Amino acid sequence: MVSTDKAPIVGMIGGGQLARMTAEAATALGVGFRVLAERADDPAAQVVRDTRIGSHLDPQAVLEFADGCDVITFDHEHVPVEILEQLAERGIAVRPSPSALFHAQDKAHMRAALEGLGMPCPAWAPCSRAEEVVAFGDTHGWPVVLKATRGGYDGKGVWVVHDEAAAASALASGDANGTSWLVEEHIAFVRELSAQVARSPQGQAVAYPVVQTKQIDGICAEVIAPAPGLSDDHAIRAQELALRIAGELGVVGMLAVELFDTGDELFINELAMRPHNSGHWTIEGAVTSQFENHLRAVLDLPLGDPRARAPHAVMVNILGGDVGNLYSAYRHVFARDPGLKVHLYGKEVRPGRKVGHVTILGDDVDDLLGRGRHAADYFSGKLDE
Amino acid sequence: MVSTDKAPIVGMIGGGQLARMTAEAATALGVGFRVLAERADDPAAQVVRDTRIGSHLDPQAVLEFADGCDVITFDHEHVPVEILEQLAERGIAVRPSPSALFHAQDKAHMRAALEGLGMPCPAWAPCSRAEEVVAFGDTHGWPVVLKATRGGYDGKGVWVVHDEAAAASALASGDANGTSWLVEEHIAFVRELSAQVARSPQGQAVAYPVVQTKQIDGICAEVIAPAPGLSDDHAIRAQELALRIAGELGVVGMLAVELFDTGDELFINELAMRPHNSGHWTIEGAVTSQFENHLRAVLDLPLGDPRARAPHAVMVNILGGDVGNLYSAYRHVFARDPGLKVHLYGKEVRPGRKVGHVTILGDDVDDLLGRGRHAADYFSGKLDE
Repeated sequence: MVSTDKAPIVGMIGGGQLARMTAEAATALGVGFRVLAERADDPAAQVVRDTRIGSHLDPQAVLEFADGCDVITFDHEHVPVEILEQLAERGIAVRPSPSALFHAQDKAHMRAALEGLGMPCPAWAPCSRAEEVVAFGDTHGWPVVLKATRGGYDGKGVWVVHDEAAAASALASGDANGTSWLVEEHIAFVRELSAQVARSPQGQAVAYPVVQTKQIDGICAEVIAPAPGLSDDHAIRAQELALRIAGELGVVGMLAVELFDTGDELFINELAMRPHNSGHWTIEGAVTSQFENHLRAVLDLPLGDPRARAPHAVMVNILGGDVGNLYSAYRHVFARDPGLKVHLYGKEVRPGRKVGHVTILGDDVDDLLGRGRHAADYFSGKLDE
Repeated sequence: MVSTDKAPIVGMIGGGQLARMTAEAATALGVGFRVLAERADDPAAQVVRDTRIGSHLDPQAVLEFADGCDVITFDHEHVPVEILEQLAERGIAVRPSPSALFHAQDKAHMRAALEGLGMPCPAWAPCSRAEEVVAFGDTHGWPVVLKATRGGYDGKGVWVVHDEAAAASALASGDANGTSWLVEEHIAFVRELSAQVARSPQGQAVAYPVVQTKQIDGICAEVIAPAPGLSDDHAIRAQELALRIAGELGVVGMLAVELFDTGDELFINELAMRPHNSGHWTIEGAVTSQFENHLRAVLDLPLGDPRARAPHAVMVNILGGDVGNLYSAYRHVFARDPGLKVHLYGKEVRPGRKVGHVTILGDDVDDLLGRGRHAADYFSGKLDE
């Protein structure tokens, strides 16, 4: 139960940029916010007063962290369900619940559940040997997508495979002690979409505008909100899918449903049960940000208006390049474009690592994309001016 | 000098709600942020990782606090100039500078400086005896305004005085060991305005839309942005006054110029050289918030776009009432109005104390005012529904 005698304390496991941005929303709302970070220099650990250092894989560390929190939620989906069940058994509110979160942890579990609900998914099958991949490809067409069922993020653990040799090589990359795999139909999409909803324990839910995402090498590069040219029918269908998944799986907090758009149809790619990169635009671009609505949802408060506050928003991720000091780019980037909103996460720069993002609001998507990409490229050291 | 080898650290002296909201902007920008708070439960101290506890009146505490900061700035104007001059002598960037800040600390100094610049001020005179007040009132008209030259805020230290007895009584309320006083013409204003600008060390400046403020018992109660019905001429005049004051006094950071609007003319009431209550609406309502632009200014970064992001914004302060637990109001307030943006400062509720604020954006000022007042009244315990 969330105490209502005083402002409650939300404990977020994981100290990355999602926790860092959630902290800003918690500060505004005046709710307590505690973070379990692995290292003192993690993005959230740098700024959150009530930071505890420990591993989310250590049951004792997680239990100690949760002591005194009114609700536990997540910056990532890597906390073992067994640990979360221990929390729940002690009467600590875990939101989303371990059983709901497991769908975001295990892709085979998610696929089976969504298929059971009649949701539009790529054809798929569990697999462990290259011959099974070949049989699947011969039935459903090549290439196929091989996925480790657990532990992947930002494209890690996902291979597009064109033949048996590539399948064998991918499978050999797994842990000897038991990576599980699934093979999926490769959907020939024209673009990727993301449908985000927030849902509270009592079942109130709100749907954000459906956005278009662009992945490069498996990492989210750009988001356009709302997705340009998406028909009302498709937008509503995507929102309904996300709302239905949230309800059927019992999600509490933010849910992101990543979708393949083939032009005619939508297929569900991945789920995330936390604030998501595809929703960073909501900080400035929506009446209520995904971070605030995640907090409101896990606290069982009425949800905030998810609607957009401008005709379009564009978010471009800043990826680490060969400039170690991101701050040094501010002088140029801010002088060139006073309307940019820049978020830097305090992370050490490493090539390809998400170290920040830029958001711009306005009327003209091409203009916004040009400005956002310029800033992101400048932060990455790809431009001189 | 602000280091550009890494993200610099901004040290803010004072741990109130202004520091708390500046912290949110610092987190987004990825700049270091350190706070000197008097108590561990001060609004900013509750949330800022790098909080130091100490008194802004203790030179040693301030010097130790400043060690390692790239620039020092302020949540309030109560740090003695002598301490700030010690910092400046050690090569620490103090922004605004002690000499600029002194205008916001000492009302007589401010009046003399503005008068010297030919700025429109009420008639005024220094005073220490009731007879001087009477002579001033007999010349300039009654009532008059008696002000302690230092230490006032939220209407404290200000008396509207109608006769000699009241003047004597007000003067008697001062410290025996030397409160200084000034007496001012009482301006018959039709409303109060606030003109905010940000200015950087190299002299770049931006002007926010001029807003209308409503004070009740000397405390800011409401802000409407932009000020309804303000003519372009008057709006530009107010912005020009603020820009000129910032330039002439060498202000760095945010400057708020509180103005009396008589319908025909504008008169300067007070100055504040920090983020200001009249600019809280900028968090959601402007492209760049006053908190972000204060940071950008004191870091000598190019300033952000100050323009409004909606036709109107209304900010209503939440004042402490007889409800001790502000969080308990969220369920009702959020359910009733999903478009509200609520900021709670984590302060203990005391009657009349500023403990939070509500902002709403939209087209219809009356609608926004009604919604904002309802929420603020509910938080104050004045309403049941």
